[in-house]
Order: sequence, then C-alpha cells, then structure tokens
Amino acid sequence: MRKSFVLIVIALFLLSLGASAQQALWGAAGIVSPEIKDDRTVVFRFLAPDAKEVKLTGDWMPAQGWTPGSEVMNKDAKGVWSYTTKPLESDLYSYSFLVDGLKTTDPNNVYLIRDVATVFNVFIVGVGKADLYRVNNVPHGSVTRRWYDSPGNNKSRRVTIYTPSGYEASKEKYPVLYLLHGMGGDEEAWIALGRTSQILDNLIAKGKAKPMLVVMTNGNVAQEAAPGESVLGMYKPTFQLQNTMDGKFEETFQDVIKFVESNYRVIAEKKGRAIAGLSMGGYHSLHISRYYPNTFDFIGLFSAAIMPDAKVKSKVYEDFDATLKKQMTNGYQLYWIGIGKADFLYKANTEYRAKLDKMGMKYTYFETEGGHTWTNWRVYLSEFTPLLFK
Amino acid sequence: MRKSFVLIVIALFLLSLGASAQQALWGAAGIVSPEIKDDRTVVFRFLAPDAKEVKLTGDWMPAQGWTPGSEVMNKDAKGVWSYTTKPLESDLYSYSFLVDGLKTTDPNNVYLIRDVATVFNVFIVGVGKADLYRVNNVPHGSVTRRWYDSPGNNKSRRVTIYTPSGYEASKEKYPVLYLLHGMGGDEEAWIALGRTSQILDNLIAKGKAKPMLVVMTNGNVAQEAAPGESVLGMYKPTFQLQNTMDGKFEETFQDVIKFVESNYRVIAEKKGRAIAGLSMGGYHSLHISRYYPNTFDFIGLFSAAIMPDAKVKSKVYEDFDATLKKQMTNGYQLYWIGIGKADFLYKANTEYRAKLDKMGMKYTYFETEGGHTWTNWRVYLSEFTPLLFK
Repeated sequence: MRKSFVLIVIALFLLSLGASAQQALWGAAGIVSPEIKDDRTVVFRFLAPDAKEVKLTGDWMPAQGWTPGSEVMNKDAKGVWSYTTKPLESDLYSYSFLVDGLKTTDPNNVYLIRDVATVFNVFIVGVGKADLYRVNNVPHGSVTRRWYDSPGNNKSRRVTIYTPSGYEASKEKYPVLYLLHGMGGDEEAWIALGRTSQILDNLIAKGKAKPMLVVMTNGNVAQEAAPGESVLGMYKPTFQLQNTMDGKFEETFQDVIKFVESNYRVIAEKKGRAIAGLSMGGYHSLHISRYYPNTFDFIGLFSAAIMPDAKVKSKVYEDFDATLKKQMTNGYQLYWIGIGKADFLYKANTEYRAKLDKMGMKYTYFETEGGHTWTNWRVYLSEFTPLLFK
Repeated sequence: MRKSFVLIVIALFLLSLGASAQQALWGAAGIVSPEIKDDRTVVFRFLAPDAKEVKLTGDWMPAQGWTPGSEVMNKDAKGVWSYTTKPLESDLYSYSFLVDGLKTTDPNNVYLIRDVATVFNVFIVGVGKADLYRVNNVPHGSVTRRWYDSPGNNKSRRVTIYTPSGYEASKEKYPVLYLLHGMGGDEEAWIALGRTSQILDNLIAKGKAKPMLVVMTNGNVAQEAAPGESVLGMYKPTFQLQNTMDGKFEETFQDVIKFVESNYRVIAEKKGRAIAGLSMGGYHSLHISRYYPNTFDFIGLFSAAIMPDAKVKSKVYEDFDATLKKQMTNGYQLYWIGIGKADFLYKANTEYRAKLDKMGMKYTYFETEGGHTWTNWRVYLSEFTPLLFK
C-alpha cells in the first residue's frame, strides 16, 4: 500500500499537469524569477541557451520617448540569462522579457495581469507604499462577479462588486463607491490592475477608510462584459470600442445605481454615494456627477479626460456649464482631482481647474510625479478612499 | 476641440498601455492567433523571424510516453511561423509554443489558465460538447470569492461560491454541490480550468440541471488561499503541500458546511447536499461522505484516488469498511464514479468498484476514453450535475 501510494503521488504529479506542463516544469527546474531580495533589489532569470540577446523591460525603467526602457541581461554557462535591479521603491511592478526582440512572459512567474490586449508579469516589492497592495493578515471583503439588467442599454451587463468584511453579517447600511475604468478597460481592470480589494481591505483594517461597497462597472456600453466573459467569446481585446465617450454610459448610469440600491444594503442617498474613475472613467465620473447633479457627495477624477468631442451629440454634454454650476449649487463634500506632472492630460486638467476656480467651485487637488499609469491610479485610489463618507 | 480630442485618443491609446504593452502591440500587429475556422481547423501564428525552430504543443496531440505531442510550425517570408490543425472535436483546448525549445505563451491570445505552476493559452472550438463551456446568451449566476472561518484549522480560508441566476431575488432554499479540486489545485481550479460557472449556467438554462449553489473549497488545509491570494504573497505554486491527504481536510469539512448553511439560503439537509471532486478531490469526497455518513445524498468521484496511505494516522481513515457500510445503510440517492480508460487510477477504481459490488453498495459508473485530464473532468461535471437533486 505504501509503495503504491508513493507511485500514485508521483504519477499524479506528472499526469495531472498535462503534457505541456510537464515540459514547462522540467525546462524551468530550479529557476527562481523574480527573486526579491531583502535590500529591495530584484533578480530576474530566464533560461534560453540558444538566444542571442535577452532583455528585460519593466515599468520602473524610464522610457525613451515612445520606446520602453529595457536592460540587457547576462547569460551564464548554463544558458540562464539574469539581471539584477538597483533597490526599487516599494510598489507593484510589471515586466516582460524580450528574447531576440520578441516579448515573452516569465515562465517562472504565474502572476499575470492583462492590460487591454497585453499580458504582463507582476511582482510586489518592499515595505511601504506596496503594503496596501499586498494580501495582509486582515479581514478580507468578498469580490463578486454578477450580472444586472440595464434597460437603458437593452442588455444584461457584468459588474464586479467588492463588499467589505462584515457586510453580510451586519444590519447597517453601507456607502458605495462607483469606480470606473479607462479606455480599453472593463469590469476586471480595477480589481486586477488596481488591486482594489487589497487596498480597501487594508485601509479599512487600519481604520483609515470607512467600510464601503465598491462597484466596478464596465464603461463600454457596447459590451455586455469583459472580453472572454460574454457571448462574443475569447476574442482579442481592442483599445477603442463603440459608444465609450458618447454620453450613453453616463445617460444609463442610473441602471447600475438602481441595481445596487435594490440589491444591496446601502445608503441610497447622496451622502452615501461616491463616484471616481481613471482617464475615460474620470471623464465619465465628471459627466455623470454633473448630469445627475444631486446624486453624489464625493467625486474623484484620476488623470481624467475632461471635454467631450465637439462632434458628439448627446443630451449629457449639453449645458456643461449650467449643469456644473447646478452641481456646485447643490453642494457636495469632495471634488477630488489627481494627476501626474508628466500626464498628457495635465494641461487639460490645469485648464479645468482654472475653470473651476473661476466659477468658485471647490476641489481638492493632488499632484504626483509620473504620468498616465496604473502606478499612479493605485496611489490615487489609496489617497481618495480615506476621504470618503466621513 | 475636435483635433485635440483625436490627439487625446491617440495619446490615450499609446500611453495608457504602459511601455512594454506598446512594444507588444507593435510587435504583434496584424497577427491573429489562434484563428478558429468554420471547419473546426485552427491556425496558430507566432512572429519570430530569428528563431531556428518553433513548435506548437497542445493537449489534443497524442503524447509519446512522457513527452508531450508537438508539431513543427512553418515560417513565412515575414518571419511568421504558422501551423493549421486538422478539424478538432468541439472542446476547450490548451496550448503553448516551443521557441527553440523554450515554452512560451501566445502573445496574441490573452486567454490564459494556470494549472499548478504552469500557465497555458486556451481556446474553444466547434458546436457540440464545448457549447456548455461557452458564455452563452442565458441568465448568468454570480461568482464570489469569499473568506470563512475554519476553527478546525485555526484560520480564515478562501472559498469560491457560484450562486445561480435568480438566487438573490428568490425566497426558495437551494441545494448545494461541494466541488473539490485535485493535488496542486486550489479554490481557483474548478472555476478557471473546470468552466464551472459556464457549465452550470448552461445546464440550468436548458432545464437539465436544477439551480444549485456550487461551493469550491481549497482542499489544502495548510493554505489559507490560492497562491498569490494569501499573506504568503506571490510565490511559485508547488504541486505537493503539507496536510492534503492526511485526514485534516475531511475532519474539518464541517466548518465549510456550517459557513455555507448559516450564510446562504440553502437546504440544510442531506437531500440538499452533494459532494464531488477530481483526483485528490475525489478521494476527499469519498472519505468526507463516509466520515460524515448521513450528510450527503449525492457523491461524485471523478478520477478519484481511493485508498489512504497506510502510514497516515487519522481517525478519518479508521474503520473504512465499517463507515462505508454505515453510509450504505443510511442510504443515498447517487454514488457516481467516473474515470477514463487511460487513467493511472483506473485499476484502483476498478478494485474499489469490486469492493462496492461485494458489499452490495450501489453506484453509477461512467467510463470515458482518455486519462487524468481537465478535458475529462469538465465532461464529468457536465454529466454529474444533471443527476443531482431530482
């Protein structure tokens, strides 16, 4: 019995992995990549005995114009290419290998995140900023993928909902943050790239943020759901979709509010509603909060696009100034604008702030280094959520 | 305004992707892979002008002993390697490229599934069997990742729960299927590799399966959660963990039942409980249903390991025969055994069936071609769930 058990375990090991998995495990035996050292240097390793050149490209490396930064790796006698970084600031980073010019993922790192049509490896380093991005020993909220009816779009639509630890057992009503993605994103973007559930779990556990629901919508109303999650099947995601910035999402946003407020134990009042988004999602947040001018007490624009295209005709974009003024007159608790100095939307945001200054509309401004990146959007979420529902 | 909007869109496109994404998109411009044709042939393409040899390996190719099947691809003048399959049977398949011997994922296919420590690309082909694996135009259930207290293991543990469409609005009580993964798996295995939510959505919509909850536990009691989802961080998953087949999971299974029955509107009786699992999860299902012999009316063993290691001491494995007999005497509605003819556990299952025959314990037997694969486990789930709670 004992011997056969051992045999079974070995056979299970090999067989349950499937054919290519075995090859993969054997090919990469003994290689650790990335190796995150105590001094915050990180070692990357990649086995490629026959490659002429292997480079590492990572989002911490400065880009040269449009060309992403990269570093040449060194090959050892066994054909393993390696590269060690300088000590990195505490953060979540993404990277890829370039093997003779071809981008490939790291076969020794199973942690992958999709950004639009590209898949990266990720890792977390250091103590500090990244502490909020880690799964820590704190109570964890629940994350649900669910479908709701959107009569305004004549379809069912998929949404990702974070409910904080304790929500299910509580009898209290909770406030809600509606959190919107950028162009090319979907209802998976904030939870995967944004580390929303980790940030919320950690801020709530520290007592820095109030327990709240976070509702991560799909802002592409032409879609039912993220690529691969709808009847369209496993198609290649594209950056630009129909009906993303034409007023339709803003106009039909009441569908998702109605769904949340009739299906969850939430504060169905202005004081219990926040809306924020990045890039196109910031644009949506700006216009939704203005179009429904007495609905949200907390508004967050993260690297937001501001002005609608002049050729787009939608009742949502009519009377911009008048409705913005109405939003101001109705009052709100927080109008938060965050942007990086290197962001291509920096100028548009500066002009928008000048407009707000001129009309006397109060806002909180948070400026960072860097540009239009998830590195910044994770920071903005971490800064914004502690200000809500206080 | 119009011109600046166009500029913003272009800049958004390039910048929001991040540095390496740009490179990736440019490098793979115009390439479609896999291309699934109407005649069920599939074309794979991979750009690698400098590679000496590119092979395709896929789980539909027959393996040569331990060596997975592979096919050499052909290079065109532009450096694009391609390969076209024969017409494939309708199914979900996984594949990788081998570039000069190195396994790499397909940069043109963002659909990836992790199996233990290996990441594969996947695709779905044809009309037929795979219809159950697709997202179809049917009502969709919800999928929640949630944490529960396991006092028996002195920790919080993560679980994936499928609730069928209509559950939230209903006042009815629902039955529950506890669905257990194999060695090296975790609470992500059945939902990702097993296509559980798609199979259940589709079977329920056709009226072939009763609406039910599916509770996908983590059977490695040494773990709180899947790799990357606990305080252990983003470590490399390993196949064998402590405390997987030593009785501890079986012994503490009441913790998850208690959690489900006190947090969901379910039928908290034997007639409303099913338990099934693959490989190690089949072993767990066998022993849990016997150790709690009057708890489950429906038991499913998918390619199950059967006998405990003789050196493992656990009260769960004492009195195997007596408790099995007690389970038989108490009665049940379905004891279902599914296995492939090529499975290395085929013999163990044959012996177990002989044992059941001898003691007069009734079971339903479902034999397929093939071995110890997710291809079979998706079939077993599709066959088993329609038999439940009738």
